[in-house]
Amino acid sequence: MSDDERLPQPATADIDLVTVLHALGDPVRMTLLLSYADDAEHSCAPRDLGLDHLHKSTVSHHMRVLREAGVTTTRVAGRNRFVSLRRTDLDARFPGLLDALLDAPAAPSR
Amino acid sequence: MSDDERLPQPATADIDLVTVLHALGDPVRMTLLLSYADDAEHSCAPRDLGLDHLHKSTVSHHMRVLREAGVTTTRVAGRNRFVSLRRTDLDARFPGLLDALLDAPAAPSR
Repeated sequence: MSDDERLPQPATADIDLVTVLHALGDPVRMTLLLSYADDAEHSCAPRDLGLDHLHKSTVSHHMRVLREAGVTTTRVAGRNRFVSLRRTDLDARFPGLLDALLDAPAAPSR
Repeated sequence: MSDDERLPQPATADIDLVTVLHALGDPVRMTLLLSYADDAEHSCAPRDLGLDHLHKSTVSHHMRVLREAGVTTTRVAGRNRFVSLRRTDLDARFPGLLDALLDAPAAPSR
């Protein structure tokens, strides 16, 4: 991984709570967070993320919002990009927040 | 309090995580949340909320977003309205979330 690059992202100490909440206050981006909760690296293909109903540029936009907020990190390997959750960084910055979000019911129970 | 009314708000089971995150993903509304964290009832006057730089209608808008998301409850007593945090409801619906938010550093440490 040492030869790979990462797309720009905030340092851990610069991750801002309101920016993170704004990033996650969107149903598509919450869906992405739940996908990334397995701590694996994910490709950027909408199909792989269960988002094939969305245009690739729309998915890219949402992924950029998450990365710029500090929620995810994107590794660039040649022409491929791999996205994963910044769990350690988020847990360090906002203890308990990620666990509470991932444990929460995602939609109202009816 | 039995003669007082409450403005419309979602039932606890209908509070939606993404809607709550969207509501709190705004600096003014996060400021309001921190004000309400004392669990007291607050008037709607911008001055009382440390928001006198904002127009009253702007503050009212933000308060409505919080109430409709299920973050706050508004008691109507005659011509007065009193806002407070739905801590018990939020804790029941999303265990640990409110504590994590209130314990978090509100702005990047620099």
